[in-house]
Amino acid sequence: MTYFQKVVLFSNVFLFVPVTVMASEGTTEHGNAFTYTLAVLALIVVAAKIAGAIAERFKQVSVLGELLLGVALAVPALFGFHALQELATNELVNFLSEVAVILLLFQVGLESNLQEMKRVGINSAIVAVVGVIVPFLLGTYVLAPWLFPGAGDIFGLFLGATLTATSVGITARVFKDLGVSTTKNAKVVLGAAVIDDVIGLVILAVVNGIVQSGSVHMGDVAWISVKAFAFLAVSIVLGRVLAEPISAILSRITAGIGMKMAMALAFAFGYAYLGSLFGLAPIVGAFAAGLLLDHVHFRRFSSPKFISTIQDVMEGSKDSGVIDRMHIAIEGFRERHIEDLIEDFGQWFIPIFFVMTGLSVNLAVFGNLKVLFAALALTGVAVIGKIVAGFFAGKGTDWKIVGFGMVPRGEVGLIFASIGQQSGVLNDEAFAVVVVMIILTTLITPIMLPMFLKKKEA
Amino acid sequence: MTYFQKVVLFSNVFLFVPVTVMASEGTTEHGNAFTYTLAVLALIVVAAKIAGAIAERFKQVSVLGELLLGVALAVPALFGFHALQELATNELVNFLSEVAVILLLFQVGLESNLQEMKRVGINSAIVAVVGVIVPFLLGTYVLAPWLFPGAGDIFGLFLGATLTATSVGITARVFKDLGVSTTKNAKVVLGAAVIDDVIGLVILAVVNGIVQSGSVHMGDVAWISVKAFAFLAVSIVLGRVLAEPISAILSRITAGIGMKMAMALAFAFGYAYLGSLFGLAPIVGAFAAGLLLDHVHFRRFSSPKFISTIQDVMEGSKDSGVIDRMHIAIEGFRERHIEDLIEDFGQWFIPIFFVMTGLSVNLAVFGNLKVLFAALALTGVAVIGKIVAGFFAGKGTDWKIVGFGMVPRGEVGLIFASIGQQSGVLNDEAFAVVVVMIILTTLITPIMLPMFLKKKEA
Repeated sequence: MTYFQKVVLFSNVFLFVPVTVMASEGTTEHGNAFTYTLAVLALIVVAAKIAGAIAERFKQVSVLGELLLGVALAVPALFGFHALQELATNELVNFLSEVAVILLLFQVGLESNLQEMKRVGINSAIVAVVGVIVPFLLGTYVLAPWLFPGAGDIFGLFLGATLTATSVGITARVFKDLGVSTTKNAKVVLGAAVIDDVIGLVILAVVNGIVQSGSVHMGDVAWISVKAFAFLAVSIVLGRVLAEPISAILSRITAGIGMKMAMALAFAFGYAYLGSLFGLAPIVGAFAAGLLLDHVHFRRFSSPKFISTIQDVMEGSKDSGVIDRMHIAIEGFRERHIEDLIEDFGQWFIPIFFVMTGLSVNLAVFGNLKVLFAALALTGVAVIGKIVAGFFAGKGTDWKIVGFGMVPRGEVGLIFASIGQQSGVLNDEAFAVVVVMIILTTLITPIMLPMFLKKKEA
Repeated sequence: MTYFQKVVLFSNVFLFVPVTVMASEGTTEHGNAFTYTLAVLALIVVAAKIAGAIAERFKQVSVLGELLLGVALAVPALFGFHALQELATNELVNFLSEVAVILLLFQVGLESNLQEMKRVGINSAIVAVVGVIVPFLLGTYVLAPWLFPGAGDIFGLFLGATLTATSVGITARVFKDLGVSTTKNAKVVLGAAVIDDVIGLVILAVVNGIVQSGSVHMGDVAWISVKAFAFLAVSIVLGRVLAEPISAILSRITAGIGMKMAMALAFAFGYAYLGSLFGLAPIVGAFAAGLLLDHVHFRRFSSPKFISTIQDVMEGSKDSGVIDRMHIAIEGFRERHIEDLIEDFGQWFIPIFFVMTGLSVNLAVFGNLKVLFAALALTGVAVIGKIVAGFFAGKGTDWKIVGFGMVPRGEVGLIFASIGQQSGVLNDEAFAVVVVMIILTTLITPIMLPMFLKKKEA
């Protein structure tokens, strides 16, 4: 058996069999659909965490493991077993998936350090813009009409859009592993990725608006772009103005982590809703909430016992150097950014989205060689588009490193694809092609980057 | 304005108005019911946290604040505004409420230290059994036929069941505040409360089974009792046997908090489902999962940076006493019980249940003086039943302290009541009466206990 066959077999014995048994047993007789869904999801999340850990052992991002787990779980459907696919139409599962992407984009927003973005400046901006425009144009106006003739304008726009957003997590890790995070190449890539996210979300807002209205009018496109940019810009400005007072209020609240998490989530969910009132996708709102709270710091009170132990130690010590450094350590421990709170909370939800996305791939379409070819062509365009961007990185940079650093698509591309599928714009073939493209672009980077980086050193 | 009026006004301006606006605005046009529900819930949870913090300032448990917030939010319904009540029939809200009670009972199970239960022994057991039987019999066979004539056997059983379970959180806090946690009185009460939980859940299982079958057969009652006891007993035994190997496996997992939380939740949700397969309520399963994992310890890796700072300090220090104590501190910090992980996760869900329960009270029923009288009568029986139990606490105890210590009903009683309401066994009047009883019993204890305790000292 190949490694892939083993993974498919193992994951299906672990998940498919129990779920099928549960599906035939649980929901009808005792009428507790909630508990059934929860139990299945709990199993899926555990499996996803294991798949993520395996991916990390192979120097890949955990998201890739979670996505591939979903694809592996789509195998039984080829033989007529659809118990897991039925989950994808379960309203509760869809609800939790929506919570997952909102939390995910909120996190991305929180991590988007705008000050750093400003510092890398013009080079990153050019790389980002070129890296969005080139693959978008190639996808929309070359690949879409060629590979899917007659699929229409909106289809083309969506296919192009899935090619735009860079998922820089994996690149950041490669840079870090090789100890080159502070080089100019790395800074340009990381800065461009943040700008990419912002542009990508505006594109998503536009595409989402077009899907809802069902037609492409330049006036609409302009209006949605203005709204999305304004929404993000206002959030950023508000964030800068309100960060201090909000931090001050929050640091006065002594009611523990629960209150702070409730407030952070109220921002995320409230903004997601606010975004939808403006006709924007909820994730644009969630991202804006993250930008808004980027500078807000929460104080943490979760382990007073530990802190008092440390304080006891300090009081017993006569070494003033020790005492000073302990004070700093305690402060560092108490100050906890919202990011950590949300990450802990999101840990359980986010894998649901990736597994369900993988599971939604109809593997039967790959029986058609054209689909396989389309997947490779889309991947090629995805790589070429970002490499072109690498040429604009300016003096002191290497186009290969910058280009391949920008190649992985990952989370945001998947969100685009799943919106496209749910709204019916992307058919089974196109959705499968996009998922394969995302998997391949995510696999390529950690293989190619170290080669270029080592060559350069040598 | 009275304080209560202020709270009603404030909470409704803060919550009711936005929700009404959102309800009329959000769901239809843009079709994103998920985001609307999330945003409303996020606001409700923030309000609940504030209400909880206010309750704590008045030396009450936060649960009471959350429940009263729900009741305050039920006021606009008196004037024909039902926007918030509609949430109670929203499937997503009901789903999250179900998640909340499962997490809550999982926590209760984790906190139920069985070894301590064994140690307090026979006195606690007698107090617990008497404190369950007396109010149950009084409620079922005296109050129910008298106050709600013709409501039927099942109704009576349910009303009696809501009177059984002790919610000892508030008593524990009063004991702790007054520094008497280690007295015999306190130990008997805390031990009895744990046994109470177990008995209460068996009663719930029985009552739940009766509701589902629609009739009372002694054979069924016996069979469900056996199943519930067996389920809990097997979980306890498995917990004792498997704690060591599970802990060993988990401590080898280095994939961070996410994996551990996923596994803990898989236990909770999986057991809840398993319970439902045996015809037991999901919360019985969740409680069993808590008992099972009671002794399992997870290692924590969340703040490696902090730990390495501490380690740096230790390396720099020449005082061996400091170093030894720092090692102990780091170990204490790394070892983290599942309880903490689940508590952080549950923080956001659990208030939803309490607010929704308060919100489900139809305040209009209190226009009928009979209902008010019934509420007071039920509260009287709830107090008397536990005080009778106090007489059985044995030598060296004070019946007033033990009795009033057992009076608060709280969480488990509310879960009973909401199951009763949702299944249609408890009508609006009875549900309102039970909620008022729970509020009053929870208010009485922190007022009465300190009086008795101070008298004794003097």
